[in-house]
Amino acid sequence: MQTIGVSAKLHDERAGSLARELIDWLRRQGREVLVDDTVPGFDELPLVEMPARVDLMVVLGGDGTLLHVARRFIGHDTPILGINLGRLGFLTEAAAGNMLEVVGQVLAGRAKIKTHFSLEAQAWRDGQALESGHAINDVVLQRNDHPRMIEFEMHVYGHFMFRLRADGLVLATPAGSTAYALSAGGPIVHPEVAAISVVPICPHILSNRPVVLPASAGIELILIESPAPAALNLDGQVHHELCAGDRIQVNQAGTVSLAYLPERHYFEVLRSKLLWAGHAQE
Amino acid sequence: MQTIGVSAKLHDERAGSLARELIDWLRRQGREVLVDDTVPGFDELPLVEMPARVDLMVVLGGDGTLLHVARRFIGHDTPILGINLGRLGFLTEAAAGNMLEVVGQVLAGRAKIKTHFSLEAQAWRDGQALESGHAINDVVLQRNDHPRMIEFEMHVYGHFMFRLRADGLVLATPAGSTAYALSAGGPIVHPEVAAISVVPICPHILSNRPVVLPASAGIELILIESPAPAALNLDGQVHHELCAGDRIQVNQAGTVSLAYLPERHYFEVLRSKLLWAGHAQE
Amino acid sequence: MQTIGVSAKLHDERAGSLARELIDWLRRQGREVLVDDTVPGFDELPLVEMPARVDLMVVLGGDGTLLHVARRFIGHDTPILGINLGRLGFLTEAAAGNMLEVVGQVLAGRAKIKTHFSLEAQAWRDGQALESGHAINDVVLQRNDHPRMIEFEMHVYGHFMFRLRADGLVLATPAGSTAYALSAGGPIVHPEVAAISVVPICPHILSNRPVVLPASAGIELILIESPAPAALNLDGQVHHELCAGDRIQVNQAGTVSLAYLPERHYFEVLRSKLLWAGHAQE
Amino acid sequence: MQTIGVSAKLHDERAGSLARELIDWLRRQGREVLVDDTVPGFDELPLVEMPARVDLMVVLGGDGTLLHVARRFIGHDTPILGINLGRLGFLTEAAAGNMLEVVGQVLAGRAKIKTHFSLEAQAWRDGQALESGHAINDVVLQRNDHPRMIEFEMHVYGHFMFRLRADGLVLATPAGSTAYALSAGGPIVHPEVAAISVVPICPHILSNRPVVLPASAGIELILIESPAPAALNLDGQVHHELCAGDRIQVNQAGTVSLAYLPERHYFEVLRSKLLWAGHAQE
Repeated sequence: MQTIGVSAKLHDERAGSLARELIDWLRRQGREVLVDDTVPGFDELPLVEMPARVDLMVVLGGDGTLLHVARRFIGHDTPILGINLGRLGFLTEAAAGNMLEVVGQVLAGRAKIKTHFSLEAQAWRDGQALESGHAINDVVLQRNDHPRMIEFEMHVYGHFMFRLRADGLVLATPAGSTAYALSAGGPIVHPEVAAISVVPICPHILSNRPVVLPASAGIELILIESPAPAALNLDGQVHHELCAGDRIQVNQAGTVSLAYLPERHYFEVLRSKLLWAGHAQE
Repeated sequence: MQTIGVSAKLHDERAGSLARELIDWLRRQGREVLVDDTVPGFDELPLVEMPARVDLMVVLGGDGTLLHVARRFIGHDTPILGINLGRLGFLTEAAAGNMLEVVGQVLAGRAKIKTHFSLEAQAWRDGQALESGHAINDVVLQRNDHPRMIEFEMHVYGHFMFRLRADGLVLATPAGSTAYALSAGGPIVHPEVAAISVVPICPHILSNRPVVLPASAGIELILIESPAPAALNLDGQVHHELCAGDRIQVNQAGTVSLAYLPERHYFEVLRSKLLWAGHAQE
Repeated sequence: MQTIGVSAKLHDERAGSLARELIDWLRRQGREVLVDDTVPGFDELPLVEMPARVDLMVVLGGDGTLLHVARRFIGHDTPILGINLGRLGFLTEAAAGNMLEVVGQVLAGRAKIKTHFSLEAQAWRDGQALESGHAINDVVLQRNDHPRMIEFEMHVYGHFMFRLRADGLVLATPAGSTAYALSAGGPIVHPEVAAISVVPICPHILSNRPVVLPASAGIELILIESPAPAALNLDGQVHHELCAGDRIQVNQAGTVSLAYLPERHYFEVLRSKLLWAGHAQE
Repeated sequence: MQTIGVSAKLHDERAGSLARELIDWLRRQGREVLVDDTVPGFDELPLVEMPARVDLMVVLGGDGTLLHVARRFIGHDTPILGINLGRLGFLTEAAAGNMLEVVGQVLAGRAKIKTHFSLEAQAWRDGQALESGHAINDVVLQRNDHPRMIEFEMHVYGHFMFRLRADGLVLATPAGSTAYALSAGGPIVHPEVAAISVVPICPHILSNRPVVLPASAGIELILIESPAPAALNLDGQVHHELCAGDRIQVNQAGTVSLAYLPERHYFEVLRSKLLWAGHAQE
């Protein structure tokens, strides 16, 4: 690992100062460091060029910042290490407090790699493809800026699955199952299960339950009715505004590789971050 | 019941034509009919003047139309009869198919009256009262036009109850418990229970459960954090846009009186409209 | 408050020793103390005679012990004070650690009284009344000692409500809403709401939701099918074994009066005991 | 497919008479038919010998009967065809009404095969292995014949996952996700997802959510506290009674092969049998 990429949460003073501390430390260790435009005062390399250039990518910020960077690394096996500044951190590995120690261990080859698959969402309007996008956590179709529900259909492998009036629908990877899908009532899906969770958001119906589909499922959503433009959100960012008649195809896409240290176990994260089963700690 | 008010769903051809049929029929029976601006071709009486003038108010439309009219009747005991054209009708009594028969029975004194209490929401910004409003179903604080969650506190009788990151919160009357509160996961509350349901919308937390408070509870919500203006919705209509720091006081307010025929029982409506307990019909 | 009754958790060494400490202390204060058969070494007064004799009843144990004693006080307004040794204590007021201080404050007249209504359950077989019983938390119909579900109907005010295949059904008072009804997925109902929660246990159906009925609802359950004797449990104690065809009438019955100190607020108990809204403490 | 095995629901007149009709029809077609002890009047072949002898196994009965037969076929790839007489039939393929047509199509090679993995449960007491068993739907640890909850721990891959007070726990295969796990609140897991659902039954805690683990997860349950013998149920049948201190290891085991006709799609079964998304039919 000779070349290390660094990116930090934008407009966050603490992330910036940690980034500078890390860059100094890495250079003193004789590593080449490439920095994107999130850390002022260095030569910038656009984030989009990082995957081809770096051996390890370090991201300083919460899960949101990590997702933003990681989407650029979809399909590459360069490991990404997240240093957590944020609230909930299922993807970020380390706390800011022991950043140098953790980076040191990763450089020393003691990290393991978890791969997470991504989803590709391709929207269509009147037979024309709109801009496509990728998500590592979730693809969400949701009403926006209007209090009335939307109505949509879901088809899988070409088979009609259901039609629903709701605030929206979350399609989540296992990584996303502890993000918005959890809030909407979905199950926790272990990162090693190759599955997509289908979780309606506030459906106006009683007979409803989250469904876990194979990751390979070819999914199509059709927006039937929407009193105002609905939002297609990828990883919690608005990707496109949709109107009645639009279709969205969602398919499994490439993976990203996240570095982590074996000390921290998934269930421990569940318990400490979600107070799962009532335990703040063991 | 000499003077009958009539209002219909706006811009709905079928509602308009039913309204004209009803008005003709009522006049042939020697009743005075007052019509608001929703039915073209008649002398208009503003809706706001109806409560003081009519002995019975007939509303042609779904629950949304009925709620719109009923909010003008809060604090009056004039009975309102809803003729349902819409999808789910917990408040509307009759289907359009037997409108004349049902209206005839109500005029003949065979109706019963259900009273529903309303909620008053008063928002405050920097110590200044914003416009207040009433709801018969629900007061909803909700993120709007932005994919990130809001954070808010709830206090009851001056006691801190909880602080939550979520998409929002529903405060529902029993009438509203089968509307948006149901979609958000709340319990079904029988109309005769004097209670307000507190139902978080997509809270990002596991340890959460709807809470049923006394109708008399003095509730205050404080919007702590909101990445974009949040919406204060009353009965599914945007009432105000709120920003961080705003406070909303919610209190029980006056009642409305809905006319219904004793044939139709509440549980039957639950079963037929919500497929409750899996029954489309008995 | 001259005469104080004392009862302790049976076969619990710590409860017994606390009871003796309390009895000594009360006598030194010049109070008359009456003790039931749960604390060896004193003249016994049967629990059933306590309500007519004491001005305050102190119970040392968890919610289970308190419920056992309180059922004898249904219909009496003698205040009961619970000193908590157990795990979850919504009904017990004080922790063992400050028992004497709390009892002292209650004797000094600084306690408030919460009244809780009870439920009466009357089972019928072939037109014959079986033994009736009372519950302060919940009446539960449940399969027992057999892995197959039971099937039952529920009627309210003589109206058919639903028919369900499930493991059982909880009918809970507000006090019981944080006990077994909570585990079965029911809402938290504030103690001042006059309501009964209807919470199915593991129903084999999707279209299901807890229902909150008026406390005055006249409820009848009919056990339609049961592969083995089903249990009718009152406050978590087996009251009767039931078989197919048996009917159970459940109605609101008398109240009990629980003493508490105003320092401790209901929502605080929710947060600290249930980690509600993710808070172990404020 | 020359040799066909037939088994029917025990003590069920209709199943028996359908079985005889089927056996006659198969013999007229020149097939050899082997019958177990569930259909009187034929030479009996013990069920345990069927897998080695037959090319197709036809089962007349509900999902329970099919599970009973299928457990004998774990690890064999002989297809099993279920003819449904029961209430919910996710595993049984055909309705009794068109039995001969469906069997004919299967014999003509028009069936597809779904494989379902099974779970093996091995209980241990004081270091001694108790009798092990297999389940196709679910392994359930549950309190039995006592109204008080049990307490248990779950470990996965040797890592502590949680400790819980509850009525029990369901570990379900995807096939079992629409059986008891559904009643306990678990997600619907598509049969092609290689996963085990972990669904607590009535946990006395708020911060709880079903978890979906990889099918390969090595699971261990430890019964910490149980006021009376708890039940270890496999596919809804009591397998063993357990007491505090007992351990249960649950692992993925061999598969069974179920024959089905491609006409009927999984989502259609969900909609028609569970009224999923409110649809009794499309």
